[in-house]
Amino acid sequence: MSIFQENLENTLQKTQEAFVEIQTYPIARRIQLMRTIADEIEALGPELIETARAESNLPEARLTGEKGRTIFQWRSYADAVEKGYSFDASIDTANPDRTPPKPDIRKTNVALGPVAVFGASNFPFAFSTAGGDTASAIAAGCPVVVKAHPGHPKTSQLMADAISRGVEKSGYPKGIFSHIFCETNEEAQALISHPVIKAVGFTGSNRGGLALVEIASKRPEPIPVFAEMGSINPVFLLPEKIETAAAALAKQYAGSLTLGVGQFCTNPGLVIGVESSALEEFENVLNEEIAKALPAPMLNAGIAKGYQTNREKVIGLSGVTVLSVATAEAAEGQGAATVATVSGVDFLINEDLQTEVFGPFALIVKCKSADEMFSVTEKLHGQLTATLLATAGDLGANAELVALIQNKCGRIIFNNFPTGVEVCKSMHHGGPVPSSSNAQYTSVGPDAIKRFTRPLSFQNWPDEFLPEELKNANPLGIWRTVDNEVVKGAIGF
Amino acid sequence: MSIFQENLENTLQKTQEAFVEIQTYPIARRIQLMRTIADEIEALGPELIETARAESNLPEARLTGEKGRTIFQWRSYADAVEKGYSFDASIDTANPDRTPPKPDIRKTNVALGPVAVFGASNFPFAFSTAGGDTASAIAAGCPVVVKAHPGHPKTSQLMADAISRGVEKSGYPKGIFSHIFCETNEEAQALISHPVIKAVGFTGSNRGGLALVEIASKRPEPIPVFAEMGSINPVFLLPEKIETAAAALAKQYAGSLTLGVGQFCTNPGLVIGVESSALEEFENVLNEEIAKALPAPMLNAGIAKGYQTNREKVIGLSGVTVLSVATAEAAEGQGAATVATVSGVDFLINEDLQTEVFGPFALIVKCKSADEMFSVTEKLHGQLTATLLATAGDLGANAELVALIQNKCGRIIFNNFPTGVEVCKSMHHGGPVPSSSNAQYTSVGPDAIKRFTRPLSFQNWPDEFLPEELKNANPLGIWRTVDNEVVKGAIGF
Repeated sequence: MSIFQENLENTLQKTQEAFVEIQTYPIARRIQLMRTIADEIEALGPELIETARAESNLPEARLTGEKGRTIFQWRSYADAVEKGYSFDASIDTANPDRTPPKPDIRKTNVALGPVAVFGASNFPFAFSTAGGDTASAIAAGCPVVVKAHPGHPKTSQLMADAISRGVEKSGYPKGIFSHIFCETNEEAQALISHPVIKAVGFTGSNRGGLALVEIASKRPEPIPVFAEMGSINPVFLLPEKIETAAAALAKQYAGSLTLGVGQFCTNPGLVIGVESSALEEFENVLNEEIAKALPAPMLNAGIAKGYQTNREKVIGLSGVTVLSVATAEAAEGQGAATVATVSGVDFLINEDLQTEVFGPFALIVKCKSADEMFSVTEKLHGQLTATLLATAGDLGANAELVALIQNKCGRIIFNNFPTGVEVCKSMHHGGPVPSSSNAQYTSVGPDAIKRFTRPLSFQNWPDEFLPEELKNANPLGIWRTVDNEVVKGAIGF
Repeated sequence: MSIFQENLENTLQKTQEAFVEIQTYPIARRIQLMRTIADEIEALGPELIETARAESNLPEARLTGEKGRTIFQWRSYADAVEKGYSFDASIDTANPDRTPPKPDIRKTNVALGPVAVFGASNFPFAFSTAGGDTASAIAAGCPVVVKAHPGHPKTSQLMADAISRGVEKSGYPKGIFSHIFCETNEEAQALISHPVIKAVGFTGSNRGGLALVEIASKRPEPIPVFAEMGSINPVFLLPEKIETAAAALAKQYAGSLTLGVGQFCTNPGLVIGVESSALEEFENVLNEEIAKALPAPMLNAGIAKGYQTNREKVIGLSGVTVLSVATAEAAEGQGAATVATVSGVDFLINEDLQTEVFGPFALIVKCKSADEMFSVTEKLHGQLTATLLATAGDLGANAELVALIQNKCGRIIFNNFPTGVEVCKSMHHGGPVPSSSNAQYTSVGPDAIKRFTRPLSFQNWPDEFLPEELKNANPLGIWRTVDNEVVKGAIGF
């Protein structure tokens, strides 16, 4: 057994012990723990931002905002637990007079068990060590083992230390949160393959996510992998809208495309429109905007190199023409905004044109007709988001296209841009395969908690031994479904 | 292309067209369709029961009850859609004054797409052609293609005809429901592999379910499989309870074990207790009850043969002793109730003792101590149900064991028996692997609808084009989460 494996065994033994221990804790303690962790992250001083800047090249304002978002995730997920949303508590009371007698059945969502979290490079705070996956797993009542992202190890350690202080101050067992560094893919595989681990959260590339899905499915006891893998987030230009606002739309679109050097899983990397003079105007203005865009350092050298490689790959495909490249020369490690065009016919015959180019790159698909636009849409893979730049009239006149687009994505946007993923209960961040491994769950917003739970029904269970959320008196004061009605009251009083 | 494949292509083209068509229908029509189908099933005369009796050997009373349950599923799932539970509708209103402006985000659950349903042999009505999977997929807004179960083809056809009449009377496109017969595994595989199909519902054996999971995961676009595969449903005898009621418990247990010739996925095929004079008394009374049990015809010759084979296999394992066999001789095709015992130590070292013997067979695991009982429980695979025959005092004194059992099952039962799965909102029928392929979803009760949906968020979407359940006016009058509060009112009024 290697030193890594020995350490992993020790870590996961403590993880499992912590899981047994915390299942006896009241919900109020879990909420308190999450709020304490949020406070500890908030208390992290300038060192956090400095460290993250050095490791990720992200600017201070962005990192400060992301820190706030991370704290908000912990607090708002704690609020969601307090409101009881993640339990979906439901009670069907007994009816002893029925033939056969109807038992008392009550259902809540319980913790799946210890969760392995694989953070993202592009959000060193909000989707990494102390990010949404960790916060939602803890909110679900699961211990967490984070595999630290190699792109920002010091940042991750600062965050891990903050969580550990929160754990200690709240009197939780240390094993509820562990932070490990893996040197090789085999080490990461050992983590996912371990029988103690019951679910995986992942944010990153398609290749990485699918590899985890495969490992998890081949375990003697397969486990779910919630992998958010990114997409090309098509933007549809509908005729009435573009006719009236081509220039303004092009400027707004350029802003969304180049935001954060295009390093978002919701970056709108594909534009689909029908050939017209308005589309030409959109292209011309976009060309000017892209030409002006200043190249900026990407997250790390590997990502900058990947951007170059994938960009060249797509540009080299049959029928692709470069429309615009940022004029200022990109230094080593920087990404230069680039837009290319391709015809609808060429797009239809080559799925490689749907390759995600992680960075400020977009492909405009120029269709000959509305019918061709429909065909192009039919060909699209699953997407996290789809954006319609349209008038209400456009929506009405293109009902079939709009319905088709809805079947392809997890979030559909009207005259707004997909970058900027709101952390709220109504957010769904997770689209059909291959944008995520499981389209039925979100990785952003408090509903992300449900990824790490499963329902458990109690039949004729004595009230004193029921979980708090199912007790007659409703001590948590939460909304529950009782005999098919949504109520907040106690039962049998 | 074979005739089967050609027919399948034609069928699935109509399925896809129907999916596009019905997405434009109002929810009220879907509810009306379900109620009309329920009426058509109710209207089926004695021919249905006669046909099912001949094909399944199930007695008239059981089939009459199962017909009622099937109708209840269609009606109660329609009620659940009417109440809006399957949508989980959530709205976060905009805040234009925030920096950056907060968009309007609204989320509902939309149909996954066409669903392939594989029915069960043991419930020719309630979990077959017109069973829970079909009803919940239609309730979710998905067209259905049922692969008819070869064990009861005529029964299935009668049910399919009833559904088709309901579809026609409701003015729905025929393609919303198709019923196909497969001669070979390859034909069933062609159905699951077809790109039109977006999810699979299955009730049956572990081997069958896992085969479908594998096919579905290897598609270019993997799809979810909701396979309910059965389990051995452990019954825990806790000391205080058995001390006071061994004889009565043994009689009740024998009734549950032999009900329907043990042909339920919730049949309690494993008993776990600690050696004591009370356990001896339980065994003695159980022995008498089993000896008296009359052998009865099983569903078909294949199942009767499988029962014999698996029973002999488990009885032949190291350390297993037969306690009791029904005295009356079992004729060809009948199953004779059988109970065997094994020590805790033997159980711990041989996972084959957890083989499901589909039929009236039970294994009693006799542990030397409470510690050994805990170890045996740790070894258990995932289960649909677990039953505790216990006093409240037993629950209090065995908190760790009870917590462990909860982690192993989808439904936990106190002094009641697992057979008889209540169709209600609070039911969870689906336990950890291998009892089902996805512990996060139930296959019984209206929450089963959610298996065939996925969330979709609308950002800044014009009210007139939103789905009914998300419109400002709340025309469906359903409960929704609006800005983190559960309310029934309209928005902006």
